[in-house]
Amino acid sequence: MALTTPEEEKQHNNNNGCHMNLAISQYCTGEPQANLSAVINHYVHTLNHFNFRNLGYPTNQNFDYDALAPLLQFHLNNAGDPFVGSSFRLNSTSFEVSVLDWFANLWDIQKNKYWGYVTTGGTEANLHAILVGREQFPDGVLYISEDSHYSIFKIARIYRMQCVVVKTLFSGEIDCADLKATLLHHKDRPAIINLNIGAVDDIDLVIKTLEKSGFSRDRFYIHCDAALFGIMLPFLKAAPKIISFKKPIGSVSVSGHKFLGCPIPCGVVITRSEYMNASSRDVEIIGSRDTTITGSRCGHAPIFLWYAIKKKGSIGIQNEVENCIANARYLHNRLSDAGIGAMLNEHSNIVVFERPLDHEFSSRWNLACQGNIAHVVVMQHVTIQMLDSFVTEFLHKRSFSRFQDYGSFQPLCIAEKVSIANCSCSMHNLYHDCAC
Amino acid sequence: MALTTPEEEKQHNNNNGCHMNLAISQYCTGEPQANLSAVINHYVHTLNHFNFRNLGYPTNQNFDYDALAPLLQFHLNNAGDPFVGSSFRLNSTSFEVSVLDWFANLWDIQKNKYWGYVTTGGTEANLHAILVGREQFPDGVLYISEDSHYSIFKIARIYRMQCVVVKTLFSGEIDCADLKATLLHHKDRPAIINLNIGAVDDIDLVIKTLEKSGFSRDRFYIHCDAALFGIMLPFLKAAPKIISFKKPIGSVSVSGHKFLGCPIPCGVVITRSEYMNASSRDVEIIGSRDTTITGSRCGHAPIFLWYAIKKKGSIGIQNEVENCIANARYLHNRLSDAGIGAMLNEHSNIVVFERPLDHEFSSRWNLACQGNIAHVVVMQHVTIQMLDSFVTEFLHKRSFSRFQDYGSFQPLCIAEKVSIANCSCSMHNLYHDCAC
Repeated sequence: MALTTPEEEKQHNNNNGCHMNLAISQYCTGEPQANLSAVINHYVHTLNHFNFRNLGYPTNQNFDYDALAPLLQFHLNNAGDPFVGSSFRLNSTSFEVSVLDWFANLWDIQKNKYWGYVTTGGTEANLHAILVGREQFPDGVLYISEDSHYSIFKIARIYRMQCVVVKTLFSGEIDCADLKATLLHHKDRPAIINLNIGAVDDIDLVIKTLEKSGFSRDRFYIHCDAALFGIMLPFLKAAPKIISFKKPIGSVSVSGHKFLGCPIPCGVVITRSEYMNASSRDVEIIGSRDTTITGSRCGHAPIFLWYAIKKKGSIGIQNEVENCIANARYLHNRLSDAGIGAMLNEHSNIVVFERPLDHEFSSRWNLACQGNIAHVVVMQHVTIQMLDSFVTEFLHKRSFSRFQDYGSFQPLCIAEKVSIANCSCSMHNLYHDCAC
Repeated sequence: MALTTPEEEKQHNNNNGCHMNLAISQYCTGEPQANLSAVINHYVHTLNHFNFRNLGYPTNQNFDYDALAPLLQFHLNNAGDPFVGSSFRLNSTSFEVSVLDWFANLWDIQKNKYWGYVTTGGTEANLHAILVGREQFPDGVLYISEDSHYSIFKIARIYRMQCVVVKTLFSGEIDCADLKATLLHHKDRPAIINLNIGAVDDIDLVIKTLEKSGFSRDRFYIHCDAALFGIMLPFLKAAPKIISFKKPIGSVSVSGHKFLGCPIPCGVVITRSEYMNASSRDVEIIGSRDTTITGSRCGHAPIFLWYAIKKKGSIGIQNEVENCIANARYLHNRLSDAGIGAMLNEHSNIVVFERPLDHEFSSRWNLACQGNIAHVVVMQHVTIQMLDSFVTEFLHKRSFSRFQDYGSFQPLCIAEKVSIANCSCSMHNLYHDCAC
């Protein structure tokens, strides 16, 4: 579809572009279908404006589930344990188990050795996994890195666990020297470690650090929060096998809607079945076991995931992964060539760069911003044409700021987040010149 | 649609009636669309068989969201706090806030006095509400009745809260004499009380019990788990105003998919805004506050709820409530007239009765069973014709059991669950005759 101009977008400039009056009167007598359809059509129109400008968030917007529309006629509910089944017959647990088997195989764990479920998103997957860790080690200390997803900090508070924050390197990777120091500080208590596969924490190095700090395998539990990359990494020919249950890890979580693409948020958690035997109870009323966090669970999400994996196939997924990373490199090069500080980790599709100062511009491209930096996550719907439009507009806005400030414009310093080598602020730019 | 015969159903007799091979090979090269559509069509066919025989669970299967099918093209995500908004523009928070305003008004709390969100179901709503209670009273004791939803027991364990189980009366209502005894036993610690509006716990009586036990209003927090009935009760002309924030309650939760009907599980939690100010943190990356349990949240569910409420209107909802209760009375009378022990609380659509001994029959009608009893929840898709078919088949199966057992067949005793007056086992039937 044609991209809109900034002027067109001002017309859709509410939080979600929807400026209709949606209030529901307590005395309403039932709205005519025509009115309801008009609201929905208008909303769809505004969504279309934003859909293909979504650069900042790791959600694949390029999917087609039209064939699944008939499923909207049913309330599907996978209440309880997907492997036990449920007496609520309108469920999709057979699709769910197929999806789980696929992920288990992807991460090197046999069918009879794993347990898992399709969650409502990455956060529920982490909630479950860290609870499994806490059940193993009720007095364990939770170690999380500074760059952990914001939900992990919340989970520690909810679960009443002592939580230690470990420093990170510029790449976002957990700093194993700091991890070792903190482990030694709490060496009398078991360790529950949350690793960010997105920031590409080095699982092997963390395991070595645990061993060197005197933590035998029966005294630690590692959860791998693999939000986006858990699906991508196994399909990268050039990448080492990072996520594998052949290593002494306890669980892996991944978001379903991020790489595969799904209308509704969902996730997957896989853990070892040996952990699940003691920690749940049978619930006769649903004919199942209450092994999940949310109990009643969406039956549609597993079907979306099943459909996406089946449709793409391994080769399709691999092509998408390689294309996203190639396009991310293209963006990184374009920004660097234009003298904008930017960073792209190896095997990653997330380009970190100098935050645009124009809020409207950031909002228009749906950028995720934090401090002096912004992210573009190059997903399947992000084309070279979109990236070209984005960079051209960014450069135009930036040069306009420079003009407006009568020469006093200074690029933001982002060295703290991306290292001096990737920063293009006035001071570090000089450093690059010297280094050359 | 025509109901199927038991013989037809044997063909669809897996856990969810889906006996296709859904396995995903690790080496699959992408399935042709025709094959995928064939699987989905077959699944839809099997779902249709079960859809209008769902008697045991409180899910309204009578809805039509065809007009919302275009929304399947978008990943909608209401990450963060619905009132703060989000920098992820593909959200539906304006629909969500309209839905929340409607519920807040229903339960007598002003717009500027409440906070809430649309959850992934009743369990997440309870998870949030009880966490709010725990934040108010970190050392509070959680009181729950025997008849509480199974998730509440899990929540207590997850949250590391001391949990006291209080007895219930035959009606399922919390026994305030036992509540008082347990309150006095822990009188030095604040009380967090989970009430089941489904079992129709008497909020006013519980508040009086708290006061009589020496708990002033700054030493207790009441959460009302109103799963199904939270929407129904306010529309019952004959019922007193049960749920109201004019009473000293802290939160109310309700399921969205139960009475209103929704393809995916969802719920609503409403609490007082004063509780929310201190307990969450801003998250710059999503431009919102991390005030919810699940973080990334389904953007479609609030639109389904908005659409359902708008389409039905207050009069439509009231008609549906009255019709469900009238049909439940019809079922209760038919069972009682046939000499089957059964109970129906006032203002309720849940008929509790002697559990059918034939497992296939229970499964065929998707009954929820527990011990010696079974439930039918008379929702909007349950017609008089369905109930007649159900009762006729039940009586036929029961008389067949009686015949098979050569006269030794005895109706199950369910007095413990429904009281002697409602039990039709041999012993209590004699009691009825005497009483007559």
